[in-house]
Amino acid sequence: MIRVGIVGATGYAGAELVRIIAGHPNVRLTALTSRQYAGEPFEKIYPAMKNLIGVSCESFDTDRICDEADVIFLALPHKLPMDIVPDLLKNSKKVIDLSADFRFSDPAKYEAAYQSHSSKDLLSKSVYGLSEVFTDQIKNADLVGNPGCYPTSVILPLYPLLKSDLIDVTTIIADSKSGASGAGRSLSLTTHICEITESFKAYKITGHRHKPEMDEVLTAAAGKPVDITFIPHLLPMSRGMESTIYASLKKRVTAEEIHNCLADFYSDCPFIRIYDYGIATDTANVRGTNFCDIGFVLERDKNRIIIMSVIDNLVKGASGQAVQNMNIMLGMDETVGLNAIPYPI
Amino acid sequence: MIRVGIVGATGYAGAELVRIIAGHPNVRLTALTSRQYAGEPFEKIYPAMKNLIGVSCESFDTDRICDEADVIFLALPHKLPMDIVPDLLKNSKKVIDLSADFRFSDPAKYEAAYQSHSSKDLLSKSVYGLSEVFTDQIKNADLVGNPGCYPTSVILPLYPLLKSDLIDVTTIIADSKSGASGAGRSLSLTTHICEITESFKAYKITGHRHKPEMDEVLTAAAGKPVDITFIPHLLPMSRGMESTIYASLKKRVTAEEIHNCLADFYSDCPFIRIYDYGIATDTANVRGTNFCDIGFVLERDKNRIIIMSVIDNLVKGASGQAVQNMNIMLGMDETVGLNAIPYPI
Amino acid sequence: MIRVGIVGATGYAGAELVRIIAGHPNVRLTALTSRQYAGEPFEKIYPAMKNLIGVSCESFDTDRICDEADVIFLALPHKLPMDIVPDLLKNSKKVIDLSADFRFSDPAKYEAAYQSHSSKDLLSKSVYGLSEVFTDQIKNADLVGNPGCYPTSVILPLYPLLKSDLIDVTTIIADSKSGASGAGRSLSLTTHICEITESFKAYKITGHRHKPEMDEVLTAAAGKPVDITFIPHLLPMSRGMESTIYASLKKRVTAEEIHNCLADFYSDCPFIRIYDYGIATDTANVRGTNFCDIGFVLERDKNRIIIMSVIDNLVKGASGQAVQNMNIMLGMDETVGLNAIPYPI
Amino acid sequence: MIRVGIVGATGYAGAELVRIIAGHPNVRLTALTSRQYAGEPFEKIYPAMKNLIGVSCESFDTDRICDEADVIFLALPHKLPMDIVPDLLKNSKKVIDLSADFRFSDPAKYEAAYQSHSSKDLLSKSVYGLSEVFTDQIKNADLVGNPGCYPTSVILPLYPLLKSDLIDVTTIIADSKSGASGAGRSLSLTTHICEITESFKAYKITGHRHKPEMDEVLTAAAGKPVDITFIPHLLPMSRGMESTIYASLKKRVTAEEIHNCLADFYSDCPFIRIYDYGIATDTANVRGTNFCDIGFVLERDKNRIIIMSVIDNLVKGASGQAVQNMNIMLGMDETVGLNAIPYPI
Repeated sequence: MIRVGIVGATGYAGAELVRIIAGHPNVRLTALTSRQYAGEPFEKIYPAMKNLIGVSCESFDTDRICDEADVIFLALPHKLPMDIVPDLLKNSKKVIDLSADFRFSDPAKYEAAYQSHSSKDLLSKSVYGLSEVFTDQIKNADLVGNPGCYPTSVILPLYPLLKSDLIDVTTIIADSKSGASGAGRSLSLTTHICEITESFKAYKITGHRHKPEMDEVLTAAAGKPVDITFIPHLLPMSRGMESTIYASLKKRVTAEEIHNCLADFYSDCPFIRIYDYGIATDTANVRGTNFCDIGFVLERDKNRIIIMSVIDNLVKGASGQAVQNMNIMLGMDETVGLNAIPYPI
Repeated sequence: MIRVGIVGATGYAGAELVRIIAGHPNVRLTALTSRQYAGEPFEKIYPAMKNLIGVSCESFDTDRICDEADVIFLALPHKLPMDIVPDLLKNSKKVIDLSADFRFSDPAKYEAAYQSHSSKDLLSKSVYGLSEVFTDQIKNADLVGNPGCYPTSVILPLYPLLKSDLIDVTTIIADSKSGASGAGRSLSLTTHICEITESFKAYKITGHRHKPEMDEVLTAAAGKPVDITFIPHLLPMSRGMESTIYASLKKRVTAEEIHNCLADFYSDCPFIRIYDYGIATDTANVRGTNFCDIGFVLERDKNRIIIMSVIDNLVKGASGQAVQNMNIMLGMDETVGLNAIPYPI
Repeated sequence: MIRVGIVGATGYAGAELVRIIAGHPNVRLTALTSRQYAGEPFEKIYPAMKNLIGVSCESFDTDRICDEADVIFLALPHKLPMDIVPDLLKNSKKVIDLSADFRFSDPAKYEAAYQSHSSKDLLSKSVYGLSEVFTDQIKNADLVGNPGCYPTSVILPLYPLLKSDLIDVTTIIADSKSGASGAGRSLSLTTHICEITESFKAYKITGHRHKPEMDEVLTAAAGKPVDITFIPHLLPMSRGMESTIYASLKKRVTAEEIHNCLADFYSDCPFIRIYDYGIATDTANVRGTNFCDIGFVLERDKNRIIIMSVIDNLVKGASGQAVQNMNIMLGMDETVGLNAIPYPI
Repeated sequence: MIRVGIVGATGYAGAELVRIIAGHPNVRLTALTSRQYAGEPFEKIYPAMKNLIGVSCESFDTDRICDEADVIFLALPHKLPMDIVPDLLKNSKKVIDLSADFRFSDPAKYEAAYQSHSSKDLLSKSVYGLSEVFTDQIKNADLVGNPGCYPTSVILPLYPLLKSDLIDVTTIIADSKSGASGAGRSLSLTTHICEITESFKAYKITGHRHKPEMDEVLTAAAGKPVDITFIPHLLPMSRGMESTIYASLKKRVTAEEIHNCLADFYSDCPFIRIYDYGIATDTANVRGTNFCDIGFVLERDKNRIIIMSVIDNLVKGASGQAVQNMNIMLGMDETVGLNAIPYPI
């Protein structure tokens, strides 16, 4: 059975990977690394999983993890993976990196948003892991740069519409809202319950690093430069992300045409659910799942489209999509391990 | 001492009026009406106020309330006030209506959004109670149509910019988010804790009645027809409203010019707080208060402005502004009864 | 494949049954009834499950459901099942009733707490579905009275201690706290987010119907009358139940003896997790799962034990335990369909 | 006007003091100290108070604060105040310490629970600031040890019953629950929204430092040693504390006798509200207020009383009671600055 290792297993994305991989019928969880908790049983850090994991955290060591695992997920802050990935690939491992390090095609764009890149040459080999859009490339990839949560929620609904040239790219505005788990497990006043209860606010309003990631992919889709307006907001809750996207249409189209454009593009994609015209999405409908639900309305007089897109930022926005990409890379059904029935509430 | 009556005192806006009026040093709470709770002490319905109010609810009766009160607040669903207000005015009462019934100047716009209006003639006499904008008219008004919560949060930041002709009115988009108290105290699955916890969603995406209200006032400000795009969303919390507003600027302006435009317009307005450029607002900063906090950023390459505006939907968005209007109508300092220091958390 | 029907499928316990049964590998969901939503696809009522259930709600009809299902769960308010169950049993169905109607052995106790019972004779045939305690009887049962949520959380830790005669039964106090989903989906001010946010309170302090249920089972365990003190409280959250139980020990025992008493009794019970001495339980550790986690401390000077017990009130406290009972009745491994890895947060 | 200084102004208790003192009509806020934020305007740290405070934080200096203030509140972690207070008293300041340093009469009890005490001699001069119980002593005190939040909620209802010798002191059990603001503003996983949402748990179950504080005061009330059982729990919310207290009565008493015992003892105490028999208290009813609401039921067959007591842990449980004590020390009405009408929701 294929052996899976998770580097950075004790952050929220890492722990969510542990959850999914431990319940995955076709692979086996064999290695977990954590700088902070090396030597401790994973279940001690996440006692919800008491009795269920049986693997202890170890400090990261390239040779050891290459011995222990065939597929390796990296759930680390950006900048760390770029130094680790080359050795893993040399050892013929399949690598899925959840940081930003291998999401960009253009090193200059990465370096403008983050910092200098020590493995630029790998950017041309890595595939952007937006599973439904780049399925064929992912199939053959050894290295996947797993998308950011905001980009996933924004690109998925826009991609088909841009491909079909329906949207005036100069008018795209994404007003996005995220649950606090997107900020991770590290401590901050921002996620202190007393500060976030009954609080709603925009943040990073002068620039968020997920915007250039979106622009690069949307530019490729549109075949012309896309430079969207993007404002992220923080929700007083744990999991869930919504993007309300506004854009002008290039010509008169009917609701049916929009619906068909989306439904056709995602016809073979079990994780994308297109809502009937005028029905609003709800993050509660995708909580704990790998779904991306998409709804829309048209303002006919202004020829404007408003799209709503919801994901669970830790699942389709991170670890779920990462496992979906692993499934695709390994030639399995993309839904394996990700098809639990959602909770009703 | 001026006597105050509240009609519809047991809904959330009514109860918030009770709170503010009971703590107001210059007026006295003398009458509360409630269809559902007639005969019961108000404190029994809101036990937080045990020992502090001492007024029981009665059923509504025009003669009785005119005997008991000089100023009358109506916190009723729309359609009811239009039939009650004429008699109150005949009795020389000052009336502040929190419903939509007296917010519109143009009866046709009201009737398109709500239903036929039985007191159309009063629309020309009623003043739109956006306190900072229509202060002079409110001073002399006998009847104030208190603004909706969404309109308050959207119009306050836009009004000065439109007056100064800085904004391309065809590009205005307001993405608004409200706490659940805006939906009132009546029961609905929407506000059931199990359905709203960890939920975020847009609603009424094919049309919300607050939009024509905004358009009418913004049109007057701009001197030309304004037809904004407006999408409301529901937050998993009780109090608080945020509007993120996107628009194209008509010409190149600096952040300083924008800041001055807002700060000058509201220079004598203690409840409007303009944030420094690039600082995001937070509903937690205005919770329980009558403040409207406004922040903004510019996207210089796209010449687009993004404005954030936050209020407490029950205070500045309803009952607080209503009391502010009463203060203005009675020639008192507008802040009396509304100037408690906010809670730090 | 065994066919399963759920009567009352659209309340929270019913919907949770739908979730578990739809994901159960060994049975098939074939019938759902709902008075309120007859004729509607289940997925329309719980859109989280869009595309995943494919069964519509129908009104309840004995003949039809007996045609459609082999095992029938009843997730109805008490009083309704007592009239339905006899016909289902005559049709040789396996029945698991989640109401209180078939939990009591003594009809007088049921009638004192609820109302007159129309199927008293069945009480001697029905088995109390506390899965780990009455496993053998459940194996051979046709009718299971599925325990209440509070009784599950209180009885599971006390049963072994009473069986071992370690506790002074006159001193048992259970201070229990429940998430709001225990109050069900029907509308009430109690579960309105604006009333429950930042609220914690005891309720039904002069008597809760789950107390006689606990007393009957604990009395059987102790071999002498047990009449506990029980105060339920409402938590400002959706899922989760904690009971902190206080009792005097009959003799000096060590922490190790208590731990062994519990661990031995539940040694073959994968859903019971006994914590090390002094480690507190947390409802978050069992959320969405069928686990009951148990912890304890001793006050040696006072020879008092304090036990903490946590469950998810909708899973181990209702629908999960119901499915566990079905598994036992059908001779399957009791964990089938209930062994998903828990979410880390 | 009396000048007030707050040492440790930027923690939650400190900031709550700032709120109350800034709104107090009879005193003036003149000095704020903060180690972390020295030099910064207080309003920058708590932007809710933007434009309203006008005092900047400074580092602590005995001479300076003695120059600037007549009354000094210390909102510091324990161990720090014991070294600061002697100098403040030498400068004839009135001092109210919110830490545990001056709560105990018996230095040995303090040292057993905390650490060695450098100002033991002052313990005999300091008064325990449970305002309603020790009013006369507080009137003449120069140094008040402000009670802990749990002790306030537990002692207030028990004190009159112990004084009247109604309770078997060997049977007292307090099951208490606190909002997360009690843990303060310092960062911890415990108060991370993703860890506390949908979580309820006991903590410090092998011993909490507030227990010896309660025992000392209750022992004095009872005139015999009291050693209660106390288990604190953490609520998934910000403000609010509930204690459910169980005890055996020494003799048969009626509900009326209990009610009278409490109501008589607190007859001149506007912040204590005794509920009618059988009515449960709710933390939401006291949120943001200085009230302690008390309710109870009797189990006549077991001759047991169950008492519920609720406070806002930051107000009556900390800063509100501290200001109440200041009012008493300064000979003012105890409610000044604390009598805002509570929010309905």
